[in-house]
Amino acid sequence: MAPQLDGYFKQVDDLTDHFIERLRKAVAIPSISADEERRPDVVRMGQFLADELKTLGAEVEQRPLGPQPGKEHLELPPVVIARYGNDTKKRTILVYGHYDVQPAGKEDGWATEPFELTVDDKGRMYGRGSTDDKGPVLGWLNAIEAHQKAGVDFPVNLLMCFEGMEEYGSEGLDDFINAEAKKYFADADAVCISDNYWLGTEKPCLTYGLRGCSYYSVEISGPGQDLHSGVFGGTAQEPMTDLVRVLGTLVDTHGKIQIPGLAELVAPLTEEEKSLYGEIAFTMDNLYESLGSETSIHPDKEKTLMARWRYPSLSVHGIEGAFSQPGAKTVIPAKVIGKFSIRTVPNMEPDDVDKLVFKYLNDEFKKLGSKNSFKATLQHAGKWWVASPKHWNFSAAGKAVERVWGVKPDLTREGGSIPVTLTFEQATGKNVLLLPMGSSTDAAHSVNEKLDKRNYIEGIKLLGAYLHYVAEEEII
Amino acid sequence: MAPQLDGYFKQVDDLTDHFIERLRKAVAIPSISADEERRPDVVRMGQFLADELKTLGAEVEQRPLGPQPGKEHLELPPVVIARYGNDTKKRTILVYGHYDVQPAGKEDGWATEPFELTVDDKGRMYGRGSTDDKGPVLGWLNAIEAHQKAGVDFPVNLLMCFEGMEEYGSEGLDDFINAEAKKYFADADAVCISDNYWLGTEKPCLTYGLRGCSYYSVEISGPGQDLHSGVFGGTAQEPMTDLVRVLGTLVDTHGKIQIPGLAELVAPLTEEEKSLYGEIAFTMDNLYESLGSETSIHPDKEKTLMARWRYPSLSVHGIEGAFSQPGAKTVIPAKVIGKFSIRTVPNMEPDDVDKLVFKYLNDEFKKLGSKNSFKATLQHAGKWWVASPKHWNFSAAGKAVERVWGVKPDLTREGGSIPVTLTFEQATGKNVLLLPMGSSTDAAHSVNEKLDKRNYIEGIKLLGAYLHYVAEEEII
Repeated sequence: MAPQLDGYFKQVDDLTDHFIERLRKAVAIPSISADEERRPDVVRMGQFLADELKTLGAEVEQRPLGPQPGKEHLELPPVVIARYGNDTKKRTILVYGHYDVQPAGKEDGWATEPFELTVDDKGRMYGRGSTDDKGPVLGWLNAIEAHQKAGVDFPVNLLMCFEGMEEYGSEGLDDFINAEAKKYFADADAVCISDNYWLGTEKPCLTYGLRGCSYYSVEISGPGQDLHSGVFGGTAQEPMTDLVRVLGTLVDTHGKIQIPGLAELVAPLTEEEKSLYGEIAFTMDNLYESLGSETSIHPDKEKTLMARWRYPSLSVHGIEGAFSQPGAKTVIPAKVIGKFSIRTVPNMEPDDVDKLVFKYLNDEFKKLGSKNSFKATLQHAGKWWVASPKHWNFSAAGKAVERVWGVKPDLTREGGSIPVTLTFEQATGKNVLLLPMGSSTDAAHSVNEKLDKRNYIEGIKLLGAYLHYVAEEEII
Repeated sequence: MAPQLDGYFKQVDDLTDHFIERLRKAVAIPSISADEERRPDVVRMGQFLADELKTLGAEVEQRPLGPQPGKEHLELPPVVIARYGNDTKKRTILVYGHYDVQPAGKEDGWATEPFELTVDDKGRMYGRGSTDDKGPVLGWLNAIEAHQKAGVDFPVNLLMCFEGMEEYGSEGLDDFINAEAKKYFADADAVCISDNYWLGTEKPCLTYGLRGCSYYSVEISGPGQDLHSGVFGGTAQEPMTDLVRVLGTLVDTHGKIQIPGLAELVAPLTEEEKSLYGEIAFTMDNLYESLGSETSIHPDKEKTLMARWRYPSLSVHGIEGAFSQPGAKTVIPAKVIGKFSIRTVPNMEPDDVDKLVFKYLNDEFKKLGSKNSFKATLQHAGKWWVASPKHWNFSAAGKAVERVWGVKPDLTREGGSIPVTLTFEQATGKNVLLLPMGSSTDAAHSVNEKLDKRNYIEGIKLLGAYLHYVAEEEII
């Protein structure tokens, strides 16, 4: 099966320096979507991708998304969509990635210039966007080029969708995907997204589930303006007093959510599912390393993985409107807004979660007997996603991993959300596969983001191999 | 008694425009002590005062205080000290004020330019520093000038101490006062500070007590760096969860402090003291107006005044290190620092308060069973102050109020602290009187700070009259 991969693989190896050079050019463009002043660089990065794709013979379009909501003077960067191949006898695979990056500056503590790809003697390629998500995006382009240069027929029609606002909430993308699902993306047979990470550093994985996220605000207000605690302390009911008391009732130190009824929404754990966690390549030391401490809730790997993947969690993120600077200020804040979110899992319907959360918050506030005003709101909700890992899209990817890496991949879920995953699934009605390139130590969103050269080069082989296997995979 | 006051009063009325002009010049100098970039303006304001005082014939010195602690590249603004009169047959009165101001910007919501004195048709003079504390400080200068122009002998030797860091913790001032108590300030017979406010808007008061303030930090930390709540929610013990639970145990909505032993430190209420509160010119409507709401703890005036003046209170001010911006961020903060303070009253010794607070915080944290690190610290403590309102310094001021305003002043305490008061009392061993000029609606520290023209002009008369009465007052 897929014997022509040997030639493709050799070609990828031969083009290693060229592919690293391509990544260097991409990293050099500081396409920070959150930074208004960098918007021209985001647009330039989209243009770079479009130019590279055209050179490779793809049909490319840059689709405008209009002004940025709330910042109407600013145009959203275009979605770069492309088609490579138009053979009705071949399967069509839709891939997604993003060409914008998180903010980065040397002053944040980077050891190297964040926008200069710097390869150390262990093959770690440091640079903002190296692993999130320029490396994986270029992986698809590199796969096309290596096929061309190796003279190997490209096994599928490839549809590409690369956005420039992922790190700023994918503004405008959902509408675009929904609008194009039956147009530009109409003949997609399956979807593949390479924008997440291995669970550890050695063993590849395929990801078939993500938790959702429901993000809430609790606003408590009373006085007409901030007050001086000397003058008003003891005479005014303080919104901050009420807020910490309410926030303190949500969850305990051991992660147990105190909201009645919430646990009952969670899909029961079957014996079969339970047995899966022991086999996953993950240790408590992996957790401690990534935590930077041993302040874990659970003492063992299985409970930890289940807590991350298949149980809800509640985090209190902070308080808006209170004193948050260093030093001392004797203010009684007039209006404070607590922020917390719940990571949701099957079968928690967001609406049901909202109802339980609002009822609980209202009950807890009422218990205080406060004259202050109370308002709880949902800021945003993204639903959890779970795909079937038995789908041919996954079995093809599993074979590709085995061929490239010599091991069967772990089947993993993730604790975080990648909302576009569910959007693609719902809009196209097709199976979505998450096929990560980088590893758990890549520090996406952090200082010293990197992609290992090995993960990049073998990852290019993997993406190409996946397309060969998915082209041949029997539909069960 | 003090018949020469009529000529002085008339002269003050005649110089009204001139005195407002002097205040306009002072307000125009944005002497914001908290803002590093405004430090030259603070220095300029000190120079302005020194120049005005010299012109009036006072001996003036500007005393350097050295570099600012923690910001050694920045020189503290000098203390302006001055002496007007050196007649050993006269009493010597030491007055204190400050020439720096709180930050202010049009963008904070000011209706007028904060550094342009703007007088409306009701005689409200808006401008940062108008009431806190440039108006009162200039009051002393204006009193000197009006005496000169009226040809009335100045009744006392006046020692002045005007600092430029009051709004930033009076950095360096305590040491200065202690060092000069037996030198520059050696012959002071009594101290007068005009840097607080009437309880309401119509009735003047003399203030003989202040609450103290003990300000605490509670630091809880665990992970090596901020975490993503999707990836780590449910697997890591979250410092923010622990912190809101601990902060939530400190005080209830009704102001009841939950720390065992604290209430027992408070001086018992005598029947005599209890009877005083009913006579004070203060209504619940006054409270509601200044609160901007009706979210009071107590339903009646007496309990409200006692809660403000003679009982402790606890306010939670905010949290450092958590997400405090608008919007949504799914962060698990690695280290959070809760800030709260206790307003202290007789007979709470700060050291005893600390012991009870630290024990309680440690006990409450232990109850959580958390692996996170916990550290509680005292940021600063200022002790409460209570003077005898029967001292001749107060009786003189009482007569001056009656002469200028036609009413006996209320004898009040304040909920806030003016730490320099206790410093002056302890360093000089003399009685300290707080003699306010502005009213409760002046909005010191807030937007649209103002001083009523009436309070300014009658206040200048009051300061002068006080000096006449205090010169003649029999020492009991």
